[in-house]
Amino acid sequence: VIDVSGEVRRSDARDNRARILAEARAAFAADGLDVPIREIARRAGVGVATVYRHFPTKEALFSDAFSDQMARCAQIAEEGLAASDPWAGFCLVIEKLMEMHAADQGFARAYTSRFPAAAVFTADRDRNLRLMLELMRRAKASGELRGDLVLEDVSLALMANEGIRAETTQLRVAASRRFAALLLRSFSTSLRAAPLPPPARLSLTI
Amino acid sequence: VIDVSGEVRRSDARDNRARILAEARAAFAADGLDVPIREIARRAGVGVATVYRHFPTKEALFSDAFSDQMARCAQIAEEGLAASDPWAGFCLVIEKLMEMHAADQGFARAYTSRFPAAAVFTADRDRNLRLMLELMRRAKASGELRGDLVLEDVSLALMANEGIRAETTQLRVAASRRFAALLLRSFSTSLRAAPLPPPARLSLTI
Repeated sequence: VIDVSGEVRRSDARDNRARILAEARAAFAADGLDVPIREIARRAGVGVATVYRHFPTKEALFSDAFSDQMARCAQIAEEGLAASDPWAGFCLVIEKLMEMHAADQGFARAYTSRFPAAAVFTADRDRNLRLMLELMRRAKASGELRGDLVLEDVSLALMANEGIRAETTQLRVAASRRFAALLLRSFSTSLRAAPLPPPARLSLTI
Repeated sequence: VIDVSGEVRRSDARDNRARILAEARAAFAADGLDVPIREIARRAGVGVATVYRHFPTKEALFSDAFSDQMARCAQIAEEGLAASDPWAGFCLVIEKLMEMHAADQGFARAYTSRFPAAAVFTADRDRNLRLMLELMRRAKASGELRGDLVLEDVSLALMANEGIRAETTQLRVAASRRFAALLLRSFSTSLRAAPLPPPARLSLTI
């Protein structure tokens, strides 16, 4: 009996942790690190003490809330660096990052915001941006990426990607795909860039 | 004495009208047409009846709130159409529109949103977008604008422009200027596009 209730408690704890993380992601995405812990606890339907039992600080909660997405970003960058063609590797990273951000606006917003207090999140992102710099260095050396581009242009691309609004996530991702192709065309030294994906229907139409 | 108080009343009415329009712009930009008139009245420090005395319907208030900016958009499009070089005309319109939108996020948001009930606003924008189509047609005919671009790509560019965040309006406008240059490069059939303006410092940096 003790074992069974122990099981139940552990499974409750797992449910609570997952619920807290989901609410934290939504709240941080909307309002940044200013969201009070008690508000996240309220939305998750748990007490403040339960939140602190799982996450000792708000910064820990923040970093954990986005750790899967951050790991995915790192994996995408590593894939790009592993490509034999540096330009193809760079394009792959931009395309996959922008698609991922378009599908997950909460994470996209967090990724392009500064949270100096969230040390783990910030360190992970800095590592990610350094991989991006290396991708750019290689793609410039291969002669395919224009020399006048800087890391700030990738930040600009990611922020701009966030501005895309559409009626559904699917439409937003489709629009983002075309947008990425347009940007990569302008990043390229040649006009050999791939043809554009089809335009997606946006709310602003005549 | 009657004349003087009449003057005062007229000047009060002008102040009220200006205050209502300013609050309406801010509220519509943040929350769209759903903002209740009583909320705009409250923020402007006037009664609901005063709002209705100046603006018979919420749609009229909405259209009036953005009428100066809409007129400026029309003026920009006409300038572009008057240019002797169609590609230069198209670039001028994209650059000026994006700069204007970057400087006025409230209007930018309104411009890229659908407000079917705001008939005057919508008709003005449709007219503007039709001028954009004509600019695109001419620039394609001149061989400088890529044939695979559609009006939706301009909408995409304007929405993406809205995603740019920076610490000050000045920095946002600078970043938007570089962004416009990047997009125009990808819109062009040649690589003769002008050099990029300098990158602007964004919050996402390492």
